[in-house]
Amino acid sequence: MITAKGYGTKHSFTDLKPVEFERAPAGPHDVEIEVLFCGVCHSDIHQVKNEWSNTVYPCVPGHEIVGRVTKVGDHVGKHRVGDLVGVGCMIDSCRHCEPCKAGEENYCEAPNSWLATYNGPMVPAKQTTDGNNIYGRDNTFGGYSDIVVVNEDFVLKIPPALRPEVAAPILCAGVTTYSPMKHWGVKAGDNVGVLGFGGLGHMAAKLAKAMGANVTVFTHTKDKLEEAARLGVTGVLESDKDSLKALKGSFDFILSTIPEKHDIDPFIELLKRDSTLCVVGALEPMKAVNNQEVAFHRRSVAGSLIGSIAETQEVLDFCAEHGIGPDIEIIPIQKINDAYKKVEDAQVRFRYVIDLASLKSETSGFDKL
Amino acid sequence: MITAKGYGTKHSFTDLKPVEFERAPAGPHDVEIEVLFCGVCHSDIHQVKNEWSNTVYPCVPGHEIVGRVTKVGDHVGKHRVGDLVGVGCMIDSCRHCEPCKAGEENYCEAPNSWLATYNGPMVPAKQTTDGNNIYGRDNTFGGYSDIVVVNEDFVLKIPPALRPEVAAPILCAGVTTYSPMKHWGVKAGDNVGVLGFGGLGHMAAKLAKAMGANVTVFTHTKDKLEEAARLGVTGVLESDKDSLKALKGSFDFILSTIPEKHDIDPFIELLKRDSTLCVVGALEPMKAVNNQEVAFHRRSVAGSLIGSIAETQEVLDFCAEHGIGPDIEIIPIQKINDAYKKVEDAQVRFRYVIDLASLKSETSGFDKL
Repeated sequence: MITAKGYGTKHSFTDLKPVEFERAPAGPHDVEIEVLFCGVCHSDIHQVKNEWSNTVYPCVPGHEIVGRVTKVGDHVGKHRVGDLVGVGCMIDSCRHCEPCKAGEENYCEAPNSWLATYNGPMVPAKQTTDGNNIYGRDNTFGGYSDIVVVNEDFVLKIPPALRPEVAAPILCAGVTTYSPMKHWGVKAGDNVGVLGFGGLGHMAAKLAKAMGANVTVFTHTKDKLEEAARLGVTGVLESDKDSLKALKGSFDFILSTIPEKHDIDPFIELLKRDSTLCVVGALEPMKAVNNQEVAFHRRSVAGSLIGSIAETQEVLDFCAEHGIGPDIEIIPIQKINDAYKKVEDAQVRFRYVIDLASLKSETSGFDKL
Repeated sequence: MITAKGYGTKHSFTDLKPVEFERAPAGPHDVEIEVLFCGVCHSDIHQVKNEWSNTVYPCVPGHEIVGRVTKVGDHVGKHRVGDLVGVGCMIDSCRHCEPCKAGEENYCEAPNSWLATYNGPMVPAKQTTDGNNIYGRDNTFGGYSDIVVVNEDFVLKIPPALRPEVAAPILCAGVTTYSPMKHWGVKAGDNVGVLGFGGLGHMAAKLAKAMGANVTVFTHTKDKLEEAARLGVTGVLESDKDSLKALKGSFDFILSTIPEKHDIDPFIELLKRDSTLCVVGALEPMKAVNNQEVAFHRRSVAGSLIGSIAETQEVLDFCAEHGIGPDIEIIPIQKINDAYKKVEDAQVRFRYVIDLASLKSETSGFDKL
């Protein structure tokens, strides 16, 4: 086994602390990666605090990982030692179900679904009919850590044009917003609305703009209107009823990135006929929707979950090609608990990225998981 | 003006009573129709009782009309005196907006939207920005009446193979369920679920079966399971959690026909990946939906509103061709208030149709509207 160091917790009610734990060494199809940077996603916070009631402890979060390949298994053909690579939300899937065969591992229909980068299988053994776990492990540990070991098929290539720290958040925030825009056919000239203007929202705005769309972001934070202007997109306050009224029936697609239960009713009527509002931020019960506004223009309310491995590579390449990426603030891992508070208070502009080099300054005090 | 007789009300709190009112005579593009039969739709009840808070009084309901052409305007080319014809939910639309030009008048985007067979424009003048009414009338009177006058483009041809009384409910219940199944591509071999097993639900089941789909109806009424068997479709009690669990992820399309606020959450997880649950019955705020079940398989929750004139003709012809139609119970108009109670108590199997010949027995006591 390999001894890894990182930041994690054994309980929902404690801060993240320095931890030491074991990882299986690279098998014949695996890649060992020295983690350089890891993005801080709002779902890390949900998970650490067990806000989705599904956290497997101990919990070492992090699924926006960029690092350098340090070792490859005998049968690895896709990556070489020294490559700059990325790992997103998934590290394995069943490979046999219809979505997996169609290259949509993020919708893996195996009883355990896909294997998450941290927190183990998406559907734990105890929730399956036969109690099986096709991945043989109940928990996995993420990228708030010095080292990860991942099957080569779930390792992405970081294009040379992207700085590694900027590439990290593209692995979740990027693909989660890119995938639905691609699926629902966002194209040049479309009017695209984005609800919520945080980590996901600002990536959605940049990606949609790079696709040639006219982008409007809806925010409840007044000082983010300037940020919208800086990004070259239209900013509208969610509470500005006159502006909402003027936008009725004008959007080809709306993406909601708000990371908690919210009211999408006022935004459904902003859609054109036959158009879709897709919710990616809130994986929980939403506020009620009035079907009158949905039915009268044959609109749809949909959801989407991250994106496939192919789409993750696509969005990395798309960002490199268009010279875009998240606005980030680099923090040492010792600041992670403060960073969580600021994410919850929507104070971050727009994504914290942990520089894992900071972990090296810590030489003792690691709690064994 | 023509003096028409029918059943109507001036208030939300009174029963329907015999009434006398004036209709404009047929203009050059209009068809005058002697009403033979009119179906009783659940929305007639919502409207009479002002349950959607938009009723224009006096109210003479009825939008599943079959009758005989008695007069045609000088420029009418589509219909001739003596033809058996139908009129559904719409009697006019703007003709100029994008949906109208695309033959989807039911999604007319004019400020007043389309002109309903009763209750006037879908968007009354007072709700528009400029207070205009492109149809020049604030109210219209429906088919609980001896005569209607309708623009020829909104008059349907009843195929000879359909009995007129059976054709009537196809004009709303039929097209409202046919249109979304066609739009979302229901085809032979698909698994189609139908929520609610009343007027719309039983038409949905018959239409989907005729399209070659495997149909499952979900009902909360135990004795309707036998009705399902009689129709050759699978019946499942909504409360039967084991059956619902066994059906997880198995439907290509689900149509909800329940005519009031309800919980679709238990049915979303019955959909396959990338599939749609469409709500046509409840034009009001629904119960809250958990986006986790929506997002995890990229499902959609949509709505749909009746169907176009072309689709209405299509579903009439489809029913004639496949030898299907609603299960009806014919009533004299004098029984309409009793019938409403039975519809509300889900006692009808499955659609009441008023025989307007019954109106002729009434010779006095008509209230002037």
